[in-house]
Amino acid sequence: MTTVSLLSDEEVSAEALAVFTEIREVRGTDFINNFWRAMAHDPALLRATWDRLRVVMAPGALDPLVKEMLYVAVSTANGCSYCVHSHTAAAKAKGMSDEMYGEVLAVIGMAMQTNGLATGLQVEVDEVFLG
Amino acid sequence: MTTVSLLSDEEVSAEALAVFTEIREVRGTDFINNFWRAMAHDPALLRATWDRLRVVMAPGALDPLVKEMLYVAVSTANGCSYCVHSHTAAAKAKGMSDEMYGEVLAVIGMAMQTNGLATGLQVEVDEVFLG
Amino acid sequence: MTTVSLLSDEEVSAEALAVFTEIREVRGTDFINNFWRAMAHDPALLRATWDRLRVVMAPGALDPLVKEMLYVAVSTANGCSYCVHSHTAAAKAKGMSDEMYGEVLAVIGMAMQTNGLATGLQVEVDEVFLG
Amino acid sequence: MTTVSLLSDEEVSAEALAVFTEIREVRGTDFINNFWRAMAHDPALLRATWDRLRVVMAPGALDPLVKEMLYVAVSTANGCSYCVHSHTAAAKAKGMSDEMYGEVLAVIGMAMQTNGLATGLQVEVDEVFLG
Amino acid sequence: MTTVSLLSDEEVSAEALAVFTEIREVRGTDFINNFWRAMAHDPALLRATWDRLRVVMAPGALDPLVKEMLYVAVSTANGCSYCVHSHTAAAKAKGMSDEMYGEVLAVIGMAMQTNGLATGLQVEVDEVFLG
Amino acid sequence: MTTVSLLSDEEVSAEALAVFTEIREVRGTDFINNFWRAMAHDPALLRATWDRLRVVMAPGALDPLVKEMLYVAVSTANGCSYCVHSHTAAAKAKGMSDEMYGEVLAVIGMAMQTNGLATGLQVEVDEVFLG
Repeated sequence: MTTVSLLSDEEVSAEALAVFTEIREVRGTDFINNFWRAMAHDPALLRATWDRLRVVMAPGALDPLVKEMLYVAVSTANGCSYCVHSHTAAAKAKGMSDEMYGEVLAVIGMAMQTNGLATGLQVEVDEVFLG
Repeated sequence: MTTVSLLSDEEVSAEALAVFTEIREVRGTDFINNFWRAMAHDPALLRATWDRLRVVMAPGALDPLVKEMLYVAVSTANGCSYCVHSHTAAAKAKGMSDEMYGEVLAVIGMAMQTNGLATGLQVEVDEVFLG
Repeated sequence: MTTVSLLSDEEVSAEALAVFTEIREVRGTDFINNFWRAMAHDPALLRATWDRLRVVMAPGALDPLVKEMLYVAVSTANGCSYCVHSHTAAAKAKGMSDEMYGEVLAVIGMAMQTNGLATGLQVEVDEVFLG
Repeated sequence: MTTVSLLSDEEVSAEALAVFTEIREVRGTDFINNFWRAMAHDPALLRATWDRLRVVMAPGALDPLVKEMLYVAVSTANGCSYCVHSHTAAAKAKGMSDEMYGEVLAVIGMAMQTNGLATGLQVEVDEVFLG
Repeated sequence: MTTVSLLSDEEVSAEALAVFTEIREVRGTDFINNFWRAMAHDPALLRATWDRLRVVMAPGALDPLVKEMLYVAVSTANGCSYCVHSHTAAAKAKGMSDEMYGEVLAVIGMAMQTNGLATGLQVEVDEVFLG
Repeated sequence: MTTVSLLSDEEVSAEALAVFTEIREVRGTDFINNFWRAMAHDPALLRATWDRLRVVMAPGALDPLVKEMLYVAVSTANGCSYCVHSHTAAAKAKGMSDEMYGEVLAVIGMAMQTNGLATGLQVEVDEVFLG
């Protein structure tokens, strides 16, 4: 359960509703997920988060699918259940195949493992990596 | 400083040296980074880690550069300084441009931010994400 | 579901019940939340945790509300769902307004973001910060 | 060592230099810390981060000192060495006394401890906290 | 809810079923827990994970119960709810008494607390610890 | 560098010096490590931390070596460099052999890996684990 109520379209402020309208236009769907309905309690935070997300996740030197997979990786390491679910769904919607998903998980598992080993051993960084 | 000594080629066991030889062949360089020299104290752990890393990071449905960027993302979220340095260097060696790196960082920052917001709000997962 | 049963007043030891009594007196309510009912399986751990919590969260150079907000911040970064819920409720009970809560969330999100950027870049600490 | 070079005023782009100028004006000092000199490799990321930081950390329902202490708390839980140093210094500059700092540390320690206990026990959230 | 379906014995590939058979033999029970049923979507990942787990958790210089308790400790610090539940159950099955469990929790809580204090203070490592 | 100065015996308060004396007696050495010298700025926090540490790490249902290894495991997962160094040294002093240390690292690596996989897949907890 969210710590705040999930606001319906009827309950949000005009400023928040304007963000919802943009989300709907960009995504081509009427559906607004719970994250945004919870954030709508603070329209300025909602606006800033959405504006930045839209820029960061847009196609650039990396394609949007790679960005979604990076998002899943970070969210998994941070243990954010909501974010893992929403961005795994987004990655699938953007074309992540079962094979790709398996490899994302394998890399996450591998990285977590060597993160533990390198931190446990407190390995000093090689000079060559320091440029 | 590492919690164990960094073993030279002369100090490692034959089993560990065999792993070093494989690392050199696969990477096309004589250089062995500190992580492996520290792990060489436990040849079985060294062998298992290298064997698995080689499989996981090989080209597949995802190309090796994407895998390195995912590795950087996980290592950053986990705060593993050694891993961030070594895999950022590896990603650059595999073709990560300055533009791509900037976008990797931007996605990491964005994901960290919304991880904090979603966890702080304890947003309940939308049914549509649960398949 | 908790890994242990949640003990009722009838099931706990005399030592644990004495802690429950103190919690009730300090908080001015008969309600004992699940954390303490789970901890009651180990009366010494229950006692030590409660005794320390009471001291740490008491008014001092910082007022109790600021302390609760700090607690929420740490619990969010650590992804402790129970702690986020219980300390967000405690902060609200101690006067955290909607505006304050929005700012707590915004700072958490900002900090998470720059934590990721600084760690991803492995920025070296400025000498001026080292005193 | 940072994964990128720390750019001097002479090396940064005009867009990045404009951000440096704003930082200097807002802070009333010529000093630019390493975080921004590293970020200057990506002027758009630099701009977005600074613009948002300035808004989030401004006086509001919470005063700037409380915000800095929250920043320290999150950065500590995330293990971001750079962020702990820079925001502890900022908190001290904004008036955090030794007594306040001791209490911030005590609350962080307490929260970390009960985060571990509540997560280890997987305590189920009380209905009363779910509103 | 898992991001993928939990595969029944009838749905998994022959390669995955072979792993299930080994798990059943090693554990002496017909029960296959959800982790493996989810992993069965990627038989190679399932196989690699199971093969490694079997080696790592086998009796050695440390007995299997100590290894399970270490597993619980790491899983708690990482906030992995599934892993906390499954490895706490495994530790109990291997003989962890209530007293031992209370001490595991107490050490986890203590370590989390001083992790926070040492990181918050950024205590420099004593030379004597660096060997 | 620590955020506060490391206090010498001459600089600490009488209350802090009393804690130093106890540490010296319990450990049978004149050496006081930096953690306590940093904590001495807040004698009450120093006292509370030492008193609790002494109780938690004492022999009980688990022997002190197992407790030190659990401490290393938690500290590694949390990325606390100071704690990894100090408690790895303590574990070695209490008899952790090279073989045991290799197994501690292997379990940490394994747990980190499956933490990532279980969280990435958001595997739902089996009913049998919920008692």
